[in-house]
Amino acid sequence: MRAVVLLSGGLDSYTAAAIAKTQRFTLFALTVLYGQRHAREVEAARAVAGALGVERHLEVEVDLRAIGGSSLTSDAAVPRDRDLESGDIPSTYVPARNTIFLSLALGWAEVLGARDLVIGVNALDYSGYPDCRSEFLEAFERLASVATAAGTEEGAKFSVQAPLLRMTKAEIVRRGLALGVDFGLTHTCYDPVVRKGAVLACGRCDACLLRLKGFREADAIDPVRYAPPASASPPRPRA
Amino acid sequence: MRAVVLLSGGLDSYTAAAIAKTQRFTLFALTVLYGQRHAREVEAARAVAGALGVERHLEVEVDLRAIGGSSLTSDAAVPRDRDLESGDIPSTYVPARNTIFLSLALGWAEVLGARDLVIGVNALDYSGYPDCRSEFLEAFERLASVATAAGTEEGAKFSVQAPLLRMTKAEIVRRGLALGVDFGLTHTCYDPVVRKGAVLACGRCDACLLRLKGFREADAIDPVRYAPPASASPPRPRA
Repeated sequence: MRAVVLLSGGLDSYTAAAIAKTQRFTLFALTVLYGQRHAREVEAARAVAGALGVERHLEVEVDLRAIGGSSLTSDAAVPRDRDLESGDIPSTYVPARNTIFLSLALGWAEVLGARDLVIGVNALDYSGYPDCRSEFLEAFERLASVATAAGTEEGAKFSVQAPLLRMTKAEIVRRGLALGVDFGLTHTCYDPVVRKGAVLACGRCDACLLRLKGFREADAIDPVRYAPPASASPPRPRA
Repeated sequence: MRAVVLLSGGLDSYTAAAIAKTQRFTLFALTVLYGQRHAREVEAARAVAGALGVERHLEVEVDLRAIGGSSLTSDAAVPRDRDLESGDIPSTYVPARNTIFLSLALGWAEVLGARDLVIGVNALDYSGYPDCRSEFLEAFERLASVATAAGTEEGAKFSVQAPLLRMTKAEIVRRGLALGVDFGLTHTCYDPVVRKGAVLACGRCDACLLRLKGFREADAIDPVRYAPPASASPPRPRA
């Protein structure tokens, strides 16, 4: 059975894809080049697709910088050291991003005859993005069948698989490691710094904070390199 | 009040936008360059945006040729002289196209603070595309509010306006003419031919057949030029 997997190059989508692979799906990986700040993400997605042994890896460009409205698709500063428990939706939220991504996945799935879309969203250790919640995924599933010829002609039901939805970041890290995921290939940071040609994670954006928390709570070592803070000590895990 | 209008350069989206304008919406026009066969469509969209006096006209590129699955996004032949009453979904159907287009419109609407998305779909004189039906539009509306920060934080409801949904093509033509729409600016044909530098509509694809039917039944003159058929007589309206 075929599944289209949204692959960003991050830790979550890689783990979600690895889980789908254990379910005997043949993976078709879709990476959306949406004008995100760093080409590093796309390189990571390619490496991850290779490691997963996907059947095909498709990259589709959609310039969301034209739409803007996010610090990830504009030159606005990415927030640092934010309180992840605040409940606020941060400026890194990209309007309608997962709707756009799933729409593209749906189009490709219909062409491939796939009925499963896999997305690595998580609604526990996350930034509060609305399009990472189960209400959103269920509404997209309902939309998918009425939106397509497959749904109309054959009554095909599309299913959005979000295997990480109710996992903590630590559970995701543990699950990934158990499945042999190579987290060294991934890139998570929203605001990396380049030092002597190496891309280093900032350790202070939401994405880094969540990732660090996950590895810390899973009692595992994160293989990616972080920029030393101004004080030259390694990023300190918060209590 | 602001509205995001999907503008293709065709007759329907222009008329839908003109109707929205009478409802005192300030129009923000979005044209998606999706790898459709002809740049002529995009030129038409620019001319239409100018004629409508939109507040802004945004063009976003999404290469749906990468996904394929349609004669509009591949090199497959566009069907000619098809029976529009057959109930079949033709090869010009582009998988998930309107889902992708509305998703982009939703993202931009959220950035603009707009809550209305205007789309020129029609489910009477149409090609049977599933994403032109009211079930689809309603499912998208339900999705939009749970997909966005605006929906989550402010309880904002997005509305998909499809003023042509239950109009015949003749009614659309009449309504457009009554509103002063200049149909000479539009481009409808899926498979135009270029003769001596002029772009001529084929008169035989679904889009042309529906357009010709509309003008004929509205007893109006279509200002666009059609290619003469092989017999060198003008395209004959079918009884």
